[in-house]
Amino acid sequence: MPHCAHYGIDNPETQAAFRAMKAEGGWAAVNTEYCSIHPESDDKPHLAAQLWDDADIRNQALLAARAHEHGALAGVELWYGSVHAPNYDSRLPARGVSQISTDYGTGQSCYAMDASEIRELQGFYVAAARRAEEAGFDIVNVYGGHCHTVTHHFLDPFYNKRDDEYGGSLANRARFWLEVLEMIRDAVGGSCAIAARIGVDTNREPGVPLEEARQFIAWADDLVDLWDVTISNVIDWHHDVTPARMYAENYQRPWLEGMRDATKKPVVGVGRFVSPDVMAEAVHGGVLDVIGAARPSIADPFLPSKIEQGRSDDIRECIGINTCLQRVWSVGSRLVCAQNATAGEEYRRGWHPERSRPATNAAQEAVVIGAGPAGLECAKILGRRGMRRVRLVDSDPEMGGHMRWLPQLPRLSQWAKLVEYRAGQIEKLDNVEFVLGAELDADGAADLGAQIVIVATGSYWATDGLNHHSHEPVPGADAELAHVLTPEQVMVDGVEPTGDRVLIYDCDGYVVAPGLAERLARAGKQVQVVTPFESPFPRTRQTGEAMYIRRLLQQLGVEVALEHTVEAIGSDGVVQGRSTWDTAADAEWSADGVVLVTQRVSNDALWRQLVERREELSDGGVTGLYRIGDCVAPRDLADVVFDGRRLAEEIDSNDPAVALPYRRENRVVGATQADPIATG
Amino acid sequence: MPHCAHYGIDNPETQAAFRAMKAEGGWAAVNTEYCSIHPESDDKPHLAAQLWDDADIRNQALLAARAHEHGALAGVELWYGSVHAPNYDSRLPARGVSQISTDYGTGQSCYAMDASEIRELQGFYVAAARRAEEAGFDIVNVYGGHCHTVTHHFLDPFYNKRDDEYGGSLANRARFWLEVLEMIRDAVGGSCAIAARIGVDTNREPGVPLEEARQFIAWADDLVDLWDVTISNVIDWHHDVTPARMYAENYQRPWLEGMRDATKKPVVGVGRFVSPDVMAEAVHGGVLDVIGAARPSIADPFLPSKIEQGRSDDIRECIGINTCLQRVWSVGSRLVCAQNATAGEEYRRGWHPERSRPATNAAQEAVVIGAGPAGLECAKILGRRGMRRVRLVDSDPEMGGHMRWLPQLPRLSQWAKLVEYRAGQIEKLDNVEFVLGAELDADGAADLGAQIVIVATGSYWATDGLNHHSHEPVPGADAELAHVLTPEQVMVDGVEPTGDRVLIYDCDGYVVAPGLAERLARAGKQVQVVTPFESPFPRTRQTGEAMYIRRLLQQLGVEVALEHTVEAIGSDGVVQGRSTWDTAADAEWSADGVVLVTQRVSNDALWRQLVERREELSDGGVTGLYRIGDCVAPRDLADVVFDGRRLAEEIDSNDPAVALPYRRENRVVGATQADPIATG
Repeated sequence: MPHCAHYGIDNPETQAAFRAMKAEGGWAAVNTEYCSIHPESDDKPHLAAQLWDDADIRNQALLAARAHEHGALAGVELWYGSVHAPNYDSRLPARGVSQISTDYGTGQSCYAMDASEIRELQGFYVAAARRAEEAGFDIVNVYGGHCHTVTHHFLDPFYNKRDDEYGGSLANRARFWLEVLEMIRDAVGGSCAIAARIGVDTNREPGVPLEEARQFIAWADDLVDLWDVTISNVIDWHHDVTPARMYAENYQRPWLEGMRDATKKPVVGVGRFVSPDVMAEAVHGGVLDVIGAARPSIADPFLPSKIEQGRSDDIRECIGINTCLQRVWSVGSRLVCAQNATAGEEYRRGWHPERSRPATNAAQEAVVIGAGPAGLECAKILGRRGMRRVRLVDSDPEMGGHMRWLPQLPRLSQWAKLVEYRAGQIEKLDNVEFVLGAELDADGAADLGAQIVIVATGSYWATDGLNHHSHEPVPGADAELAHVLTPEQVMVDGVEPTGDRVLIYDCDGYVVAPGLAERLARAGKQVQVVTPFESPFPRTRQTGEAMYIRRLLQQLGVEVALEHTVEAIGSDGVVQGRSTWDTAADAEWSADGVVLVTQRVSNDALWRQLVERREELSDGGVTGLYRIGDCVAPRDLADVVFDGRRLAEEIDSNDPAVALPYRRENRVVGATQADPIATG
Repeated sequence: MPHCAHYGIDNPETQAAFRAMKAEGGWAAVNTEYCSIHPESDDKPHLAAQLWDDADIRNQALLAARAHEHGALAGVELWYGSVHAPNYDSRLPARGVSQISTDYGTGQSCYAMDASEIRELQGFYVAAARRAEEAGFDIVNVYGGHCHTVTHHFLDPFYNKRDDEYGGSLANRARFWLEVLEMIRDAVGGSCAIAARIGVDTNREPGVPLEEARQFIAWADDLVDLWDVTISNVIDWHHDVTPARMYAENYQRPWLEGMRDATKKPVVGVGRFVSPDVMAEAVHGGVLDVIGAARPSIADPFLPSKIEQGRSDDIRECIGINTCLQRVWSVGSRLVCAQNATAGEEYRRGWHPERSRPATNAAQEAVVIGAGPAGLECAKILGRRGMRRVRLVDSDPEMGGHMRWLPQLPRLSQWAKLVEYRAGQIEKLDNVEFVLGAELDADGAADLGAQIVIVATGSYWATDGLNHHSHEPVPGADAELAHVLTPEQVMVDGVEPTGDRVLIYDCDGYVVAPGLAERLARAGKQVQVVTPFESPFPRTRQTGEAMYIRRLLQQLGVEVALEHTVEAIGSDGVVQGRSTWDTAADAEWSADGVVLVTQRVSNDALWRQLVERREELSDGGVTGLYRIGDCVAPRDLADVVFDGRRLAEEIDSNDPAVALPYRRENRVVGATQADPIATG
């Protein structure tokens, strides 16, 4: 499916290599993300695909060519964002169906086109389609989903307030898009298939009711070779990019079914499809003709090959954590994936999700201490690179590190697959052994006799309330006290807070605090969350989970005190707090127990011991001593998995402790193709 | 001063042309923005300057060379952000003074360096300084301000929790930065001046007290050739980039004075200096040796030349609206300026802030209808381009459009300079006439006999509650009713809401609602703001004004109901509302009057009339009919000024209605210097 990656037009090699990897992995067609057709539709700082001119053709052609090398079709998704394109870079006013202020609430508006302005815009579409053809694309998808584009705005009375032949009745509202489809078909239909991505439910009133979507599909059916059916809007995109917390695989089935008999053409749709059985059922059950995937194809570009080869247990399933969208859409950064550390690194670091180069130092033995996300990824790749022997050691009898208990928080069970997949892959490697339940100190690590020692001991939640807001512990917060607990004490040690009233101090802003709040509320506790943030659990907003969490916790009677810090935890059941901005507003809560979700701290004691003995270890034959993951610095899951991968991919470099430079694609003054600076 | 522009390493020509324009305008030295010294300190998606490798040297050298062409020095600001660099692009862990979770609250952490890791980092600084020397920079500024960089983190106990020789006493905390300065002086001191940007007050506890800053300056004085003194932290940056609403010119004076006698070296500092008298007083009063400027140099790159030439009334003063920082820091986009529409367009559109090319169609007459921001800018440039006659017509007896009343909101008086400057410049042009108090319809516009007719009639606030949230009016909202008012009715017509209780419905999220709230509260009203936004006036947060506004309104007793829509306005003094997320939570407020700050609507009636008569006008000799500014689509002030400029700059192009392509700097596959695609 077309999906954002934020590599855009500015990183043509990265973009092409990322999409082409899916082609190599067996996907029948790969696509760009939304592709701007004109400078009037400019989404920077978000990096979209683009077909404005000849230079863009050249960059986009790379993607098409690379896809073709692997026998896949290449598709492009033509986008004119209208009022939803901020045009911060191009600075041009956007045209629209009506004069609408953007849903994003930034106050930006557009102008309502007159008839000649409509013709001009349709001309932009046709010109972009011709450029797509010239760039070698096989499929031109005229995007009309997610309320993100002007084609949809015409169709949807939420945006369309016109009273001319383009507004009012469905036939009128459908006119613009139908005309565009016809014009594009006339222009490039001889060499390109025409697809249309239609949003059949915007999840709000008035929107496009299913019946209207079906009617539109019927009218356009002769113009379209493939229907790409989707739902949701620019704000509530979690209906489309479904977090695993809230939505099961094939969640969109009812909507897809609703369209099936409205068309004679094939239908493609998504559903965070990761299970071959669910996919087969969707096709055989008449819901879909073509399985579409965005996130599952990011997590595993080789998903189709693996199904074909009967290797379903090798599929690296998308866990629905939504780090991809969080980074791309909310942060405005490049796509990364918690499951697939090679996503986006195909060109710039030369990584491959399935194939590993034999290590030049494969004769060495490695020991990885800590079987959490970073350690598992590192050991897996070291094994694949053919190291003579890799031992993955953990003090715990079970592997996974903090990813052993985190998925036990309510609704996060899918996340367990991050560990399960890696454990399964490692099982298949003869040269990698698990050594679980083995507590190691520096002596013990040295005694293993490996030449390469990698510390991946993870992190733990601060036991003293240390947090990003004060960079200090909270007075009275001491997890040695029975009524002050950390997430691990609750989740791993199984300690339940005593008493009825529990206060959770959340300076983390992500999933742990709401997970504990739900768990404790369901166990009958009266839960008070206190947080310095302006909105509850702000990072879950970036992943599309926040509103669901908020409503759920409200139903469970959980109170959330925003913009407050905890200043002191008394032994008398009283917790003192303060507003982050209103200096007059002290606060006080009664709590029998307190759970500190303040920040994580690296568990680096072993690392420190080993570093102190670096020379001694070296004398004993240790040629490489490294650390990876949260034990370096607690970070997002995707980044610690990456860190483990990075070390393993570069274990035979001159100095694996230092990351090799990666190829960048920015313009270099005076550079030419013949100049190594230009091409990295 | 070094300041962000978000052109970064990726747009070398844009960056060089933008900075070099200041050199041309007489600034003695121009600088990069913060310049990353290593991939471990990567701020993408924000675009910083960068000196990682030879390719970066090449790009940065362009800036230095262009500055030198105009006789200015070129400076670079070396930055290692530590935990404040997200490293979303490079994906490397950051090293830090201690293991601190980022102030930004995203949960990302860093690792506490040991002695050898400190040496490595110091090596990164030295290597970057050598690259700066190679790139031709004259000044190497070792950045330690705004809590944004590791040098500061060492100095500040808020971050420094070490108990070794780099922590504890001031001498220990100063050690890292002193060592870096010494190493850089040794490495490049022969050819580069060494500056240090020091944050002498972080506006929070513990921070770096003034006495400690003075002591540090004394210790480092022999290593440093120029002290760059600043204040504030990464969150409360409004103390440094002071919005005009809250801070007068030379606000930082007390801090600068506090440092003056601690050093024998020259001191540079900022203060949104726009008045030559205030600058002279700062220098003669012993506060500063060198006047530093970021925003004033953006608003007017030629400020120094104008002072030298005794043309102070030609200075285009920064109005402290902070659109620059809003776009760069909050949106993550490129720098734009409300006052200077050419900022950032020097290279890509070839614009010059002072010089205008004679128009090839200068024999024509133009009439600009509407003397608001877009019309004023357009008429000014048309005049400068030598059009035979330009008439600037407005139905109002005073010029300014909505910028006539907006600066009358409390604390926004500086904004009036946007109109005053343009009016003053136009006064000097013999070929531009004001025709004020003249209401024109299409006939009247045609009767003026101009060949070029430009409509710039602006926008007005919706009178029916139309808003971005519902895209519909609010039932019962009708500004014909005496108790329902628009901002213009209050500010222009002077209508005061009757009764004691006023409800302001804010779907705009910017300055109008809080301005009216303050004004009405001071007039004795009991004010209730209702808004669908999650935080009060979110765009004022992006400009650094939000917290001040919030505290002020709280003091004035203004209530703010967040995340609520107004669903109906009754004639009985009751306003019905609804929560945006909690479907069970209806709300109701009593209000004698309601002010609708919901969205702006283009005032395009005249434009529509003229378009209908396009052929007739053409027969009458009108060769060009255009519209600009808010009458196209209501947008940010900077963008409507830009729009007026754009049309005037391109008035002699083949089709001025369509913006000419601008040069982009992204990499183009296969491009070479000889290939026109590569260089635009």
